[in-house]
Amino acid sequence: MNSKGTDRRQFLKSGAVLAGLAAGGSGILRVAHGQSIESEVPHGATPHIPHGAKPRKPKKWDTDPRRLYGQRIRFEKAIRTYATDGWHLSLTPLQDLTGSITPSGLHFTVMNADDLPEIDPEQHRLLIHGMVERPLIFTMAELKCLPSVSRVHFVECAGNTDLRYRFYRPWGTVQQTHGGTSCSEWTGVPLSLLLKEAGVKQGASWVLAEGAEQGMRGKSIPLAKAMHDVLVAYGQNGEAIRAEQGYPIRLLVPGWEGQSNVKWLKHLKVVDRPYMAKQETTGDKRPDGKEHIFQFEMPPKSVITFPSGEQRLPRLGFYEITGLAWSGSGVIRKVEVSTDGGRTWKEAELQEPVHRMAHTRFRFPWNWNGKEATLQSRCTDDLGQVQPTLEEWTKAWGADMNYLNSLGAADGLIHVNPIWPWRISRNGSVSNVHFI
Amino acid sequence: MNSKGTDRRQFLKSGAVLAGLAAGGSGILRVAHGQSIESEVPHGATPHIPHGAKPRKPKKWDTDPRRLYGQRIRFEKAIRTYATDGWHLSLTPLQDLTGSITPSGLHFTVMNADDLPEIDPEQHRLLIHGMVERPLIFTMAELKCLPSVSRVHFVECAGNTDLRYRFYRPWGTVQQTHGGTSCSEWTGVPLSLLLKEAGVKQGASWVLAEGAEQGMRGKSIPLAKAMHDVLVAYGQNGEAIRAEQGYPIRLLVPGWEGQSNVKWLKHLKVVDRPYMAKQETTGDKRPDGKEHIFQFEMPPKSVITFPSGEQRLPRLGFYEITGLAWSGSGVIRKVEVSTDGGRTWKEAELQEPVHRMAHTRFRFPWNWNGKEATLQSRCTDDLGQVQPTLEEWTKAWGADMNYLNSLGAADGLIHVNPIWPWRISRNGSVSNVHFI
Repeated sequence: MNSKGTDRRQFLKSGAVLAGLAAGGSGILRVAHGQSIESEVPHGATPHIPHGAKPRKPKKWDTDPRRLYGQRIRFEKAIRTYATDGWHLSLTPLQDLTGSITPSGLHFTVMNADDLPEIDPEQHRLLIHGMVERPLIFTMAELKCLPSVSRVHFVECAGNTDLRYRFYRPWGTVQQTHGGTSCSEWTGVPLSLLLKEAGVKQGASWVLAEGAEQGMRGKSIPLAKAMHDVLVAYGQNGEAIRAEQGYPIRLLVPGWEGQSNVKWLKHLKVVDRPYMAKQETTGDKRPDGKEHIFQFEMPPKSVITFPSGEQRLPRLGFYEITGLAWSGSGVIRKVEVSTDGGRTWKEAELQEPVHRMAHTRFRFPWNWNGKEATLQSRCTDDLGQVQPTLEEWTKAWGADMNYLNSLGAADGLIHVNPIWPWRISRNGSVSNVHFI
Repeated sequence: MNSKGTDRRQFLKSGAVLAGLAAGGSGILRVAHGQSIESEVPHGATPHIPHGAKPRKPKKWDTDPRRLYGQRIRFEKAIRTYATDGWHLSLTPLQDLTGSITPSGLHFTVMNADDLPEIDPEQHRLLIHGMVERPLIFTMAELKCLPSVSRVHFVECAGNTDLRYRFYRPWGTVQQTHGGTSCSEWTGVPLSLLLKEAGVKQGASWVLAEGAEQGMRGKSIPLAKAMHDVLVAYGQNGEAIRAEQGYPIRLLVPGWEGQSNVKWLKHLKVVDRPYMAKQETTGDKRPDGKEHIFQFEMPPKSVITFPSGEQRLPRLGFYEITGLAWSGSGVIRKVEVSTDGGRTWKEAELQEPVHRMAHTRFRFPWNWNGKEATLQSRCTDDLGQVQPTLEEWTKAWGADMNYLNSLGAADGLIHVNPIWPWRISRNGSVSNVHFI
């Protein structure tokens, strides 16, 4: 928080922003009921030509689509791969990323493939109702006039690295094992601001969020989280969020499992209990036979993205080992790397600044001597939580490796965050170790 | 800098990274002479299917281009506009940006329109020669194995907001007046590391950087800057830099005028004087009749992007004023906003974290009462430099407004950073004030 923002915080604290509008009778509420701002804001459509100006005749380049809105060059071929598991999970090519931002075109997505909503932002409305003093409807234009924030956050599918996926899809690359996570700069309105304006009634304790897709996969969010750091996001990496990410608005619930981040957001209903909607549980197969729900926060996790599965080191000598670490609980404090199968560990350098609940790039120098080696990373977050080994992770819920080995294609696991080793063979080829 | 990165810094400090390779005879240099790593690294091309896996038959969505590499939705229409001035300057739609990152497809560009180099990264080489102990040639694959960093930085055209542009191009929107600046997360190899490996000879004081475009617009960079914070960048916002931004590599010279950031980088020649290449000066028209060269650092600058020229406020009431501030000298410490034509100023909130030499998003709450108003922003950087008014800016080089008014279409000005007011009329329309 900027220490200089006192004026604004006091302004918001006093309720002057929205209360003032309501008093004037000419603010948010009026616009929310039909008036559009966007349609009246030309983006250079009718340019002002000042006195004496002599525009030249447009040349070919002036209307070249490459210039108007640029595309990547044809030599770059990184794509999201599909998961052959019926879940329509498209995975981010983590091995191709640089830095900490995931390009929006490569953000992972889980969705009903037959129903990618294409929502006209002029027609879209966000309804806030349920246990509130004043039900509200917002147009996109009005949402964009409200106080906003931008923050860098990851979104990770609860089932990312689900060990059963090896039965359904190729399982050799870091994209295939870990590609269900991505990280963007998100911009939007704090949900707390909208809820305060609506006036949450006493006794309310949850918010049910519903999207505009077929089946409206609702999701219950505890009110405390909703009032804490959740965004109603319309911006992603500097522009409008992509259709696959919930255009024109989505919930962004920092650090929580992907499905909490409801896309194509349409309704927010303030309620006094969770609604047990279809997606409240992901059906994981724990040894006690019960499905776990309301686990929410994604655990600390890291993985080396170079060198990683199915790549090949072409020579001996220096390489920069690099990868990503993240935690749903807060800030990555430390990433350690082992190049000897876990016997010794050394700290990697973290890309600064380290954001809360965000992909954190780590880098570690390494000289490969041509012998077999096993590389792995281990992260620690600011709560002191340490990424476990696969054995520790299994043990934590009272099972063992035999149990893991016995799981079949229908036995899903979620919040899977064990240390992930990659084996380097003498010929330089890199391969997955777990469950091959 | 991460305090935990001691191991790595010592590693680099001792010269072990590269010296060790040279000693082993199997490191950077061997690869640099023809061996390619990239061609041997499959990106999921030959997927490993584990025992028992049953891939399902691909469905239509699996091969949908929207899924493989996503595009923005058809409702979003922000584009770079061309400048009708013969300079092939394509401008970023600042009024459409969210947060601090500029989408790569909307990054401004100045280039020879008939020569957008499309460079095959397998064929590209970077040569470091001149006053060095060991001339070096790097392939892209070898560059990507070296220690790297990622940092968020703006790049701004030296002639952004050049007041003569009003003679050539529409001059009403913030895109038209200020769109020659953009901001990305850049990833690459510190130039200092490459120069140390090459071994800079005594007496060297400059580096001449040349790109692969027609005419090779070389640029001389003082050695001190080259050794300080310059990157040989290959990554932009998480993926390969775009063709218009210099694919596969460009110089990234933090805070310095755009043309220092040589694109399609091919040659770095260490020399003992500036080479006075074609682009060393931008031909600005100062009152003393001389062209200024080697000004390098872009001054502190800010502009309100909403509400801005040719937009329209459709109602009275609350709006969030927002915009961008940046300084080539370091960190933006403060942005003040005036809504009364400069009589009173209040501090805006800055998007955190504030990066060095980067676009910094500011936000300021405002209730419009329906009267005429003039909005403007003023930034201060960590050197204490304050963005000047147009009069102050003119006075600083011994001229006055009469001189500015006398300038014609051929009289360019660079490093133009005055406070930029927008006038709100009673009907809500927003217009440019300077030189209309």
